[in-house]
Amino acid sequence: MNNPVYHKEDTICALATPAGTGAIAVLRVAGSHTFSILGKIFHPYGDTQLDAVESHKVVLGKLMDGENPVDEVLVTKFVAPHSYTGEDVVEISCHGSWYIQQEILRVLMDNGCRMASPGEFTLRAFLNGKMDLSQAEAVADLIASNSATSHTIAFRQMRGHFSKRIQQLRQQLLDFAGLIELELDFSEEDVEFANRDSLIDLLDTMSTELTLLIESFAMGNVLKNGIPVAIIGKPNVGKSTLLNAIFNEEKALVSDIPGTTRDTIEDVLVINGVSFRFIDTAGLRDSDDTIESMGIERTYEKIRQASIILYMFDAATPQEEINETIAEFREKIDDDEKQLILIANKIDLLEEMPHNFKSLVELETIFVSAKRKENINMISESLLRSVSVGVEEANQSVVASSRHYQALIETLKSLEEVNMGIGQGISGDLLSSDLKAALYHLGTITGEVTNDEILGNIFGRFCIGK
Amino acid sequence: MNNPVYHKEDTICALATPAGTGAIAVLRVAGSHTFSILGKIFHPYGDTQLDAVESHKVVLGKLMDGENPVDEVLVTKFVAPHSYTGEDVVEISCHGSWYIQQEILRVLMDNGCRMASPGEFTLRAFLNGKMDLSQAEAVADLIASNSATSHTIAFRQMRGHFSKRIQQLRQQLLDFAGLIELELDFSEEDVEFANRDSLIDLLDTMSTELTLLIESFAMGNVLKNGIPVAIIGKPNVGKSTLLNAIFNEEKALVSDIPGTTRDTIEDVLVINGVSFRFIDTAGLRDSDDTIESMGIERTYEKIRQASIILYMFDAATPQEEINETIAEFREKIDDDEKQLILIANKIDLLEEMPHNFKSLVELETIFVSAKRKENINMISESLLRSVSVGVEEANQSVVASSRHYQALIETLKSLEEVNMGIGQGISGDLLSSDLKAALYHLGTITGEVTNDEILGNIFGRFCIGK
Repeated sequence: MNNPVYHKEDTICALATPAGTGAIAVLRVAGSHTFSILGKIFHPYGDTQLDAVESHKVVLGKLMDGENPVDEVLVTKFVAPHSYTGEDVVEISCHGSWYIQQEILRVLMDNGCRMASPGEFTLRAFLNGKMDLSQAEAVADLIASNSATSHTIAFRQMRGHFSKRIQQLRQQLLDFAGLIELELDFSEEDVEFANRDSLIDLLDTMSTELTLLIESFAMGNVLKNGIPVAIIGKPNVGKSTLLNAIFNEEKALVSDIPGTTRDTIEDVLVINGVSFRFIDTAGLRDSDDTIESMGIERTYEKIRQASIILYMFDAATPQEEINETIAEFREKIDDDEKQLILIANKIDLLEEMPHNFKSLVELETIFVSAKRKENINMISESLLRSVSVGVEEANQSVVASSRHYQALIETLKSLEEVNMGIGQGISGDLLSSDLKAALYHLGTITGEVTNDEILGNIFGRFCIGK
Repeated sequence: MNNPVYHKEDTICALATPAGTGAIAVLRVAGSHTFSILGKIFHPYGDTQLDAVESHKVVLGKLMDGENPVDEVLVTKFVAPHSYTGEDVVEISCHGSWYIQQEILRVLMDNGCRMASPGEFTLRAFLNGKMDLSQAEAVADLIASNSATSHTIAFRQMRGHFSKRIQQLRQQLLDFAGLIELELDFSEEDVEFANRDSLIDLLDTMSTELTLLIESFAMGNVLKNGIPVAIIGKPNVGKSTLLNAIFNEEKALVSDIPGTTRDTIEDVLVINGVSFRFIDTAGLRDSDDTIESMGIERTYEKIRQASIILYMFDAATPQEEINETIAEFREKIDDDEKQLILIANKIDLLEEMPHNFKSLVELETIFVSAKRKENINMISESLLRSVSVGVEEANQSVVASSRHYQALIETLKSLEEVNMGIGQGISGDLLSSDLKAALYHLGTITGEVTNDEILGNIFGRFCIGK
């Protein structure tokens, strides 16, 4: 495997700005030969010498391919260790022609640079101690963030709030493990440096905290990836029309984002900074299946993934029928935690409003005309109300990464083993082995413990240039 | 009209890098309030104060929306007049999330910036005397450049090679016009400050130079927009297969350009830095018309636009038939300047090669199998050979803008009027009026003479952020 961890000596280059044509583009070069390579191809205007330029200073000049000027560029110099990767770095700001961007990359490579692998700049920042692993992961999350909540979670994690807490927990455990190790060295003498009661207290505190973090994953995941919402109901009840109406109502929030494909626009909607992810069930868009007749476990599976269900029916449906349908549906789904909101559609066809609907079905019911886009905003408001989380909550330490979630679960498991061991009065070296396992799993989160596979998985998901 | 020329006092902001998600993105702010606005929303790390930061220096810190951090950003400060626009400018380099980019723009606007109009930064650079109009236009051409030749032309123009020549010509004319004006002031005394013979000499020199420049437009236009090539031939002779084969052969040169649509890939091909633009004629792609039966003047019109015609036939066609067809075709097209290259296709079906083809039809003939992609590279080589222009020629002063071309033609016309006037011995003030017209047209090229309409046309075509 061409693992970039093993090629730390290379000077790497990549386009750092989005692909395509713009007013300007920025290319990044990092590594020990950065300045000598730039010295060959960059001719500053005036009497300036690149070598004499201090760190964090910008210089205008010509980027040359031998005798031929490629572009007039601004070069920003970052001298190690005061740079993103901790190495010597330059950023080259050129005219945003795709042709020029490619030409400069070519010239850089002709002069000794290697094209960077995905995430290689951030990998180097991690390897050089500029950030820990969880912060590095947050950089990718930050770049991918598309709502206020996902942005806040990633930004806090990048700034190290989460890492700090994990490191504190780990340090306490580490101190204890040290004492247990010490006992092992003096095992002949049967001393107990590590007070068992204090250890049990620590384990209790840690387990409580780990459990909270583990539980926060459900919320963190939802804040990061969007709260799953399913719209279900009989055919022709107006599901597609409703979906279009909702998206149309809120479209301004998403439609001005280039690169968001029509599919994505249909799937994720950001309302007041919170993402809602509309799950594609068979009945959701254009299926002729009714919820009663679907009979396919797979569709129910998908409905079960939803946190919020918008159950849609014709406002003219007799109340008894609705009661029966809902009761049946609840029985099949069998999950009291799900928010169920009834949408009574086609009020434009009613002669008068069925006022007592809500009390009968004991659920919030919103009366709308999807066709005429009446009361659609009430659905957005209701969606927001039914999530007890939002931008505020994102300010707490929440776990938003499934890798961290797994590591925390493994840590908790090992700590439970330790706890059980103490109860059973097992020997110090067995305790020590479980403690080490807990330390290992906790250490993978911040990267105090890591391996190439973990690094490969994490940084392989980055874009090139970061 | 919301003409940005009239709002020079505004502090403007825009995204400068391509739209979308990347490792980083850059936003640009320019105008007299740049530093005071940044002072409010940007908190440098450490003890640094933005006010104390010198020009061309980069500072790391947090960009804040009130109490909430939006991103950790690098801010580069450019103090007037040492900036792109000549005003106070900052460039904000942020994480490349589209959400963050939009948030920062929002915060900038909440704090007193206005979103820049297309090309408004470059317009300000022009208005502040950082570049002339022809150089400003070259910035847009440079960003749009997609081949070595179009890049070279734009780069040279941006660096002022063309402007300088135009300005020299204009200055000579201006000196002369001054003398003529002087004569008018002393018209009672019947003196001639301006030696008519010298003026005629100057007019001759200028006319020659202007004519050369005007003639260079054909080449400049071709280098900038691609050399037009038409592939024609009977139905089923393999035109589409050949086109695909040519594009496939050279695809590496264009296919790694994101943002190039499939259509563009089919239309423009860059071979060794020279663009070839394949013209879509009725017979070119999937038509069943034969060249003989097309009978539509419109199709011939398109063929007439081509500089190079690849005339394709089945290699098994009897030589007399080819001779006749070609003779007929040449008569219809009636243009000796066009390069006509014969492509004998389907050599895979021949038992032996018809060696004496070439001498018979007196045209270069390339024997290929489009299907098996045999000898396709010979076509690319032949295309390159048949253009007597290339990267080298792009280094000359060529006119590549139709606006400049028009202005040069108008200038030449006015100079001819002056010349005729001298011949007819007309009065100084009539000469003067024609000289002024010439000066006006020449001045529009570099923007020494300009108006809002010209500026609106030019900068309206720029992207926002430049």
